[in-house]
Order: sequence, then C-alpha cells, then structure tokens
Amino acid sequence: MSSDMTTKTGQPLDRQTLDNLLRRRLFYTPSFEVYGGVSGLYDYGPPGCSLQANILDTWRKHFVLEEDMLEVDCSMLTPSEVLKTSGHVDKFADWMCKDPKTGEIFRADHLVEEVLEARLTGNKKARGEEVVVDEAKEAQKKKKKAKDAGAIRLDDAVVQEYEETLAKIDNFGGEELGALILTHKIKNPTTGGDVLPPVAFNLMFQTSIGPSSNLPGYLRPETAQGQFLTFQKLLDFNQQSMPFASACIGKSFRNEISPRAGLLRVREFMMAEIEHFVDPEGGKKHPRFDEVKNVKLGLLNRDVQLSGSTELTHMTMGEAVSTGIVDNETLGYFVVRICLFLLRIGADPKKIRFRQHMKNEMAHYASDCWDAELFTSYGWIECVGCADRSAYDLTVHAKKTGAPLCVRETRKEPLTIEEWVVDIDKKKFGPKFKKDGKAVEAAVESLSQDVREKLSLDLEENGKIEVDVPDVGGGKAEIDKDLVKIERRTRVENVREYTPNVIEPAFGIGRILYTVMEHVYWSREGSEERGVLSFPPPVAPTKVLLVPLSSHSDFKPLVRRLGQKLRQLGITNRVDDSTASIGKRYSRNDELGTPLGITVDFQSVKDETFTLRDRDSTKQVRADEDRICNAVQSLVQGESTWKDIANELPEFTQQDVD
Amino acid sequence: MSSDMTTKTGQPLDRQTLDNLLRRRLFYTPSFEVYGGVSGLYDYGPPGCSLQANILDTWRKHFVLEEDMLEVDCSMLTPSEVLKTSGHVDKFADWMCKDPKTGEIFRADHLVEEVLEARLTGNKKARGEEVVVDEAKEAQKKKKKAKDAGAIRLDDAVVQEYEETLAKIDNFGGEELGALILTHKIKNPTTGGDVLPPVAFNLMFQTSIGPSSNLPGYLRPETAQGQFLTFQKLLDFNQQSMPFASACIGKSFRNEISPRAGLLRVREFMMAEIEHFVDPEGGKKHPRFDEVKNVKLGLLNRDVQLSGSTELTHMTMGEAVSTGIVDNETLGYFVVRICLFLLRIGADPKKIRFRQHMKNEMAHYASDCWDAELFTSYGWIECVGCADRSAYDLTVHAKKTGAPLCVRETRKEPLTIEEWVVDIDKKKFGPKFKKDGKAVEAAVESLSQDVREKLSLDLEENGKIEVDVPDVGGGKAEIDKDLVKIERRTRVENVREYTPNVIEPAFGIGRILYTVMEHVYWSREGSEERGVLSFPPPVAPTKVLLVPLSSHSDFKPLVRRLGQKLRQLGITNRVDDSTASIGKRYSRNDELGTPLGITVDFQSVKDETFTLRDRDSTKQVRADEDRICNAVQSLVQGESTWKDIANELPEFTQQDVD
Repeated sequence: MSSDMTTKTGQPLDRQTLDNLLRRRLFYTPSFEVYGGVSGLYDYGPPGCSLQANILDTWRKHFVLEEDMLEVDCSMLTPSEVLKTSGHVDKFADWMCKDPKTGEIFRADHLVEEVLEARLTGNKKARGEEVVVDEAKEAQKKKKKAKDAGAIRLDDAVVQEYEETLAKIDNFGGEELGALILTHKIKNPTTGGDVLPPVAFNLMFQTSIGPSSNLPGYLRPETAQGQFLTFQKLLDFNQQSMPFASACIGKSFRNEISPRAGLLRVREFMMAEIEHFVDPEGGKKHPRFDEVKNVKLGLLNRDVQLSGSTELTHMTMGEAVSTGIVDNETLGYFVVRICLFLLRIGADPKKIRFRQHMKNEMAHYASDCWDAELFTSYGWIECVGCADRSAYDLTVHAKKTGAPLCVRETRKEPLTIEEWVVDIDKKKFGPKFKKDGKAVEAAVESLSQDVREKLSLDLEENGKIEVDVPDVGGGKAEIDKDLVKIERRTRVENVREYTPNVIEPAFGIGRILYTVMEHVYWSREGSEERGVLSFPPPVAPTKVLLVPLSSHSDFKPLVRRLGQKLRQLGITNRVDDSTASIGKRYSRNDELGTPLGITVDFQSVKDETFTLRDRDSTKQVRADEDRICNAVQSLVQGESTWKDIANELPEFTQQDVD
Repeated sequence: MSSDMTTKTGQPLDRQTLDNLLRRRLFYTPSFEVYGGVSGLYDYGPPGCSLQANILDTWRKHFVLEEDMLEVDCSMLTPSEVLKTSGHVDKFADWMCKDPKTGEIFRADHLVEEVLEARLTGNKKARGEEVVVDEAKEAQKKKKKAKDAGAIRLDDAVVQEYEETLAKIDNFGGEELGALILTHKIKNPTTGGDVLPPVAFNLMFQTSIGPSSNLPGYLRPETAQGQFLTFQKLLDFNQQSMPFASACIGKSFRNEISPRAGLLRVREFMMAEIEHFVDPEGGKKHPRFDEVKNVKLGLLNRDVQLSGSTELTHMTMGEAVSTGIVDNETLGYFVVRICLFLLRIGADPKKIRFRQHMKNEMAHYASDCWDAELFTSYGWIECVGCADRSAYDLTVHAKKTGAPLCVRETRKEPLTIEEWVVDIDKKKFGPKFKKDGKAVEAAVESLSQDVREKLSLDLEENGKIEVDVPDVGGGKAEIDKDLVKIERRTRVENVREYTPNVIEPAFGIGRILYTVMEHVYWSREGSEERGVLSFPPPVAPTKVLLVPLSSHSDFKPLVRRLGQKLRQLGITNRVDDSTASIGKRYSRNDELGTPLGITVDFQSVKDETFTLRDRDSTKQVRADEDRICNAVQSLVQGESTWKDIANELPEFTQQDVD
C-alpha cells in the first residue's frame, strides 16, 4: 500500500490498481510513448479529455457566468521583457546539482530528500523496524538502479536531524541545500560520486520569436501576466466599474528538472486563473460575502503550522475573517467558492483542507496565500492557490512601461490635503551642483513629509539644509535658502488614483482532475478488480451507456433513436453492442465512470419501455422513452439524484445484470 | 475601400471601421500592447473569448458528439525526433531573404510580391489609370517608410510577366524566388540595397525540454501528430472497430517570418482537427454519405484552376463524387459537413467555396486536399483544409519506431495467395559477398513479383541471376543458383493487416472566427457608424442584455431575478444599468452582437411583464417572465427564429428605443 489514502468507500486505495485502470481506459497516457515518451508530458484520451472539458465547463458556470467575470484568452508565447519585469526571469527557478562525471542532473531538494529517506529506511532495517514502502518512489529508484543505502543504524540524534530536515525541505534555498549536501555527504545515489553545488535553473521554456532571433521569449509559466497587461482595457470594457474580475483558461508550462508523481507534476498543464481586482482601501470587502460566511471549512493557518501541528481548525468563514485568520472578505469569499467548486465536481469533503502559506514559502509576488490542498495517495497536494498578490504586478508593469495600470475615480467629496511642499529654484540649481544637479533634485523631491517638516525648521534656523544624496560627493549635499523653499500648503484633489490589489484564485486543472479520480474511485465489495469511478453525473465523461440485450436486429432502430434523442438534449452517450455479457459491458463502463445505462430488451421492442441503471447502486427502474430521457436529463444537469428518480419511477428487478 | 467585400446587407465593407469596432469592444487586442506588442500575437477579450468558446462548443456538438469521435488532448511540446519523422523539421519552412547591410529579414515571396505590385501601381499611374489602394497594405508600407516606386511606365510584355508571376507566387520554391529576385532586380524596398538569396527558415518554435538541453523540442505546428502516435490505443479503446475518427482542439504554433493580415496570419492559433481513419480498400466509402449527397456546393477544382479560371461549379456532392471531381465518399462527406458547420456558426453561403489544391501546392503529406475558403476583405482565405493524408503519417512513424500503427482484422474468408518466393542460402551468402552480404540480401528481398518471375526463368536458363544493388561494386550482383531458389508457392492468410488512410478536416478556428465577424457585420441604414454584428444566437458572445429603464430602485430586484433565472438556464446575460439612454445601450450591444434585450420598465413592476427585443429587426414583443425566458431559451438553442417568436407573442410598439 502506497499511503494511508482510502477509496470513496473507505477501503485502502491501491494506487497501482487505479493507475492500471486509468491507463487501460485511456483516461491518460504518456505522450509520444511510441518514441519512448518524454517525462512530464501526458495526453488525455477520450474519457480524460471529456472529464477535463466537463470540469472546465463547470468552472466557467461556477465562476465566470455566476459572477460576470471577464474571460480573456491570452498568448502563451511571451516576450522575455514582460517576464523580466514580473520577476519570473530572475526568480522562477529550482535548484539543480550536476554530477560532473556522469552528466546526470538532480533537483537539489529531491536529491537530499531521496538520500536522507534512504538512510532512514536503512536505519529502520538495521533496527528491525517495519518499513513502509512507497511503491511509486521505489519504481523510480529501480529505474535508476540506485545503490541500496543498506541497513545502517543511525544515532537517534541523526535520525531526528534528518527528520527535521525532511519536514522543512520545501523551504530551503540553494545555499542551504548546498550546505546540507556537504554536511550530510550527499552523493549521486547511483554512482556514489560527488555532485557540484546547486545552481539555479529557470523553469521557463525559452524560445525565439520571429526569424531574427533577437526577440527572446518564453512559454508563459502562468496565465496571469496576460490578464494584468490587459487591465486597462478590461476596466474600460467594464465601464470603469470596480471591483471586477478577469479569468483565463489555458495551458501554462514549467520545465521541471525531474518530473515525478504522474499527473501531479507535469511540464505542460491546464490552468484556470481568476484575477479579482479590488480597491485596497476599506479592508477589501466583498459584496457577496454574506452568502458564504456561514460555510464551515477546515483551515490550517500559519501559526498552527509554526507550532509543528497539522491539526485543522474547523470554523465558518465569517469567524475566520472576523478573527483575522483569513485576512479579508474577498480572500475569504474566494476560499469558500473554491471549496464549493471542488465539492461540485466530486472532491471528497473529508479530503479537502485550506492551508495558509508560510511567509518564506510564498511566491515572490504574494502578500498572503491559502492553498486548497486535496488528500491523495501522494499526500496532501496543492490544487488551487488563492493568493493576495497585492498591487505587485500592476505596479511593476506600470513602472516599467509607463502605462497607466490604475483606476482613476472622481471623489464623492473633494479631498483637501495639507502638505509640505518643496520649491527648487532650478535656474540656480544647475550652476551650483553642475553634473550632480539632477541627483540632488531627485533626492530633495523624494523627501518624506516628516523630513520636509524638520528641514523647514533647519532652513529657518540655519539658512541652509543638508540632504542625503547617495553616489554624490560625500553622500550629502548642502543647499542654501536662496535655492530652496519649504512651505506647508493646502491643495484639493477631485480625482482619486489608485492601483488595485489582486486576489488570485489559480486552479491547476490537471491536478484537480487526477485528485478527483482518486476521490471517486472504489471497487465493488468482494471483487477488488471491479473498479468504479463514481463521477457526479455533470462531470462524468460519458453520461449514458446504451446496451442492446443482444445483436438482434429488432434492437438497432430503438438504440439509434435513443442515441439521437439524447444527443439532441446535449447528452453524451455511447452504444456498446459488443457480444460481451451485459454485466461485462456495465463493468467496463463502471471503470469509465458512466453514471447511467439504458438497456434495450425484448420488452422494449414490445412496449417501448426501457430500463435505466444507476452505476453506484446498480439499481434499475423501467419506464417509457420520454420519462427515461427526462430522468437522464435531470440527473445529468445535477437537478435530481438517483434517490429522486427511484422514488418516481417503478423499480425493475427482473434482470440481474451484475 | 480595401476590397470588393460587402457587409451582411450588401453594402461595401470598410475594414477599418469594422476593425475599430472589434478593438473598441475588445473582441481582440494585440498581446503585450503596453510593451509595444509582438506582431502575430493577439489576445481575445471577453466577447472574442466567448465567441471562440461558443464556436468550439458548436464544433464539438456538430462533429465529436454527432459522430462519436474520440477526442484527445495531446501535448504541445513535441520532441524533435517526432517532427523529424513527420517531415516538419525538413519541410515546414518558408523562404526568407536578408538584407546584409540593414539586417532586415523579408519573407521572399512577400518581398517579390510587394515590389512587383508597387511597379504595377507605378505603371498605372504613369498611364493615368485608376489606382485601387489596399489600405491595409498601405498602412504596412507606411510603417516601413518604403520608397515609392514612382510613376514608371512598363512595357505591356513586362506587365503581363509581372501579373503572371504574381498569380503563381504561392507555388514558387526558394530557387525560383531567388531567380525572380535576380531577373527582376528586386531590392530592399526601404533602402534599395541588395538582398541575399533566399534561405529556408523553419517555421516551428524551438525549445529545449528538461534541464540538460539534450532533448530539443518544438511547439507543435499542428495537433495531428499527437493523434497519429496514439492511434493504436485509440483503436483499442474503440474495441478494434473501424472506421473511427479522433479529434483534438488546441493551440498550434507557427513562427511566421512577417505576420500580416491581422487575425488571419498569427503565430499562435487555435485549431480543431479531425483524423478520420479509414480502410483504403473498397474506395473509402462512408456509411452516412447518403445523408449529405444531395447538398449542393460551390466547387473550384484543379482542372478549372489550371485553365486559368476561378469560376465555381455548383453541384451536389453525390455528383461530385460520382464524376470523380471529389475523389471518394469520405472526403466528400466531410466537405459537406464542414460547409454545414460554417453555415451553422454564421458564415454567409455566398462567401463560401471549396477549392481543390494544385498538385504542387499540397503539404508534403497530402494526396488530395480541398480547402473551405471564405471570402473576406483580404480576398478568399483558407479557413478549413480537408486533406487526404493517405497512410503517410502512420507509415513513417511505424517505420521509425517499430510500433504497430496498423489494423489487424480477421478475414471473413481466409485469403489464398499465390506468389513468387525467394529463398536465400544464408550460410553461403556471407562468405560469397562478405561485407556486401546484407545489401545484396536486402536487394533480393525487395524484388517485385514481376521481377521474381522473370528471374526464375533466368535462373533456370543460365543457372544464375543478376540483381541491381546500389552502392555495391558495379551496382549489380551476380548470384549463382546454389545460393538462391525462386519458386511459385501458395499460402493462406487469415488475418489482414493494413495501415489506415487518414482524411483530415483541419479547422483554423481563429480565421473562422475573424471571417464570421466580417460576414455578420453590417450597419443600420442611414447611420454608418451604428455597426451591428448579427451572430446567430447560439454563437453570440452574450445572449441577453438586461436593461432597466432607469436607475429606479424598483427595477433592481426584477433585474436580479431575471439574471439569475437566465443563468440557471445556462444563458449568458449582462446588465447595463448605466445612465446612458436605452437606445445608446442597445447600440453598444448591437456592436457586441448581443441578439436579445429584455427591458424592465414601470409596467414590469406593475404586472411582471417584460419586453424582448430582437437585435436584427429591433422589433419587440411583450409577455410574462416565463414566456419571455422560454422564448429566449428556444432562440439561443437555435430551435426557433425571431419570426416564430413574433408570431407567438404580442408585439410591443409603445417605446421607441432606437
């Protein structure tokens, strides 16, 4: 068993069995497998592709349509200048170590992790303790033919040190990882050779735009930048009304050093991101907060984590915001909406938590961040980030380009401002300071109100002031009172100009998709091999399986008519008229997660009634075509449950197809 | 006026006016504009993004759902080995010329075109003829500050030569373009300097996958390769049943040398591709051909083009296939289905034609190809290609990787094959031919049946045979009868193995989207500036505009309730409660292509009835909430037209909002 992950029905989840099912049924498959594959790249087959489309469709309804968000579709190819400004060229990197002899490259934190874990396992073996084997990790090691660390006993103090290091492994920078490699004598696990100190490896895929190779570009690492750069036009489109949100669905890219964990860490992935632009003044209230304030969530805040605990605090979002655990209403509103979305597409409520980022863990642009983490056989996995990016991005892009990425609104009441103003006599300034003139002028103009007030007294008392000017003469400049005047004045401001803050719920759709498959997976009692994927009908890849009892030609027109009718209702269906038994055909579709089955039998030919089967209970009802189609439609749209249908339509028990 | 393109209502279409509308309403906008933009990269704003989603949704229903296609989502990042095999690394290129002095790079065919056209214009001026100005091209030239060619008269023979060259410009290779540049003394139009001979520039964006830069990759130039590589798994998924089709929607990339023509030639674009796999035996019949055979289309076949004409032949697809104009039923079936799709999303039937590719014009993989071309202000534009790729791709990938990309089916009747078999005595072969042994062996084994028969006689008569073996000795090898035996034998084949042929309808969604906008655009009579985009309701970006008569607080709850009700029906709607007049608000939404408007007025507050307005006729009806919402739903789903609704519900004429 690879972890303490359980199936939907509470049995231990065997990841290998589930993975075999997902590949057999073509939910996903490694890309370019006939060419040997490329790690971190996967294709979705028909059920995976349909599941993804349904999750995205639900996402659009839940967020974009429900809240009138402005959806955009931005370019993936991005000139490097944009990502230089956003900080990604400098900071979007992982640390890698090279083995200079073999040329192998390791992600530094993974290397430390792997070696220390192997030593801890060796220690347990030496002590005769039980060893829990993570099959996925083992499989990877076998591939690389790593040397077994051997059963070597470690001192208790060393064990504790290793465990503490592993607990904090995500928080180390390159220098710290380098120090760990030296201290713990960490080597290439395959050859035992030394590795070079960690160097930063930028995770963006680089390319060149146009024929002259003088416009370097990257594949976007997130959809967000395109949204920020269009901010001004979106604000115009929204008729200058604040707050509003933009949204973008599309692929982003991350050139992982050594992808692992299947669909959870890939190099090309579907994202759905929202940028909610809000006035930073007034505490970032949200007009619909009332609708979510009574929803209870499991939160894991920063302080609890600092105390070394991972125990969840269950509380309503209203409490969380009023006690300051969640910083503001808008952040809190989206945390709840994210949770409701995850439940809607089939995530298990017991396997959802919201974890606040530690200060040193946050992305370079974030001022606060809560992750929706879902429990999987790989442990708790970040699937949605909900970050407060403050005014970071709009500010840096506006500064770089001079574009007015801000809101200008007429004040209801004009604002009267009293302030200290500095007047410089520019005519005399040049001759006095010569080439340093501009620098001194800039230094004076950037003086704070407090300093201005103090200097106004100096000017009055001494007839001159002294100002810090870095890079000029002795770092200070003396200015006489005939060159400068400092006065307290009043001015009236009619327009308020501000840079909005951004709350960003960012969804890793691929991770969510995989996790939901783990959450809805179970197997029929007594037969482990009969896997079922209990997707909620609205997201299930195919909604209805049409099963003629046999290949008898009388069934064909009925099957065709039903298929056509369902298609017209926009309901995906597939016919299985293979020669396999009805039970086998239903089993295959249990694995595909098809929630409903319609059987066409001899009774159907006689009286045009059909049986409708529920995947989860395997119960059946029987009724005429219209009532069956209505039931299907209502189930697929999420308007009723099987229980409702079973109450309405007569049960059918004659055939035992399972 | 930029061309003889007309609006929906037959008036001359002014592209600049339409383009201003599209940008003002944020259908699209240049990507990264605050950074100066990157040519060939565009973002879709909310209406463009929604239009794209609706077109794709219609595409999925029309093709994938209707025909049970197997939709997949494949990686964009593609290792270079795959694209080397497919031929893209060697052949997916345009010809470019560099000006060595300025460093400027020109697409060779564009350069020749631009210079010759300028000279023809100069000639017309010199002769005092009327000059039609293409504004878009002029704008580009102005940007580059090209020298005016001046009013220079050309000989009649030269004019004719230039015109003939321009007509064939798409068909020239690098050497021919180089010759044209020399012959016609074509220079850099800006500086008059010489340009270097054309060199091939590969149009794929290159990058490097993983940290070690030893896995070169490209962004895919089409989605097709991913589908081909998954063929075997898709065939398994389809339970070995043929024919079947896969489909893929996603972005592809093309590093254009000098993108122009706005959204029609871009570097990153949405595609939707179908690969229909069909048994090449039996004439590529299609089971549903009967459903389309009576549809009449405008065809422009190869022979008509060769004769120098562009006149369309209007005929049914049944006729086209039976007369051999369209090669086979499957190709014909998809040509019709493509046409029906284009009509469904709003293309003007008078502006659609199907043009067969000339032999030297086809992509390297195609054996036949019909393009759906749509008429635009840029002329006839290829929007959908429908190519018969024969067995090209599956064959080359199978050959390269050894993967069995083929169909194996049990023959109904075992096949008895009589054939000439060559037996080689391998023990003697090596000693005799030494290092050439393998080559001779291969040459013998690849002999055709005819040659084998002939050689069997030689062997009998002369006791030896002579076989062509390139690269060995004198290009021939003599083999004695003790080394080789040739006999006629009979064998029985129970399984038939074949490589399917592929019919590929490939849709450039961005081009279709832009073209549809040109086709549905018109302006209200008497006021050119009041543009309308008459999208069919199912693809319109927003379906309903909710307009409260004023900001009176009584209207708010009604507007909210209507919005909520429509959202629940899955119908996108936007509220415009700005202070602008109702007429102005409707005008704005005419430009956005919103087909329906619901006005909330004082009567609504009294009796809960509402007016529903039709964008195209500006007519209104009035009814209660349920009947209005039902009418909206039925219009949006394409089930009824405004005429139906106007017949059902009472007309409302009281308010004149326009």
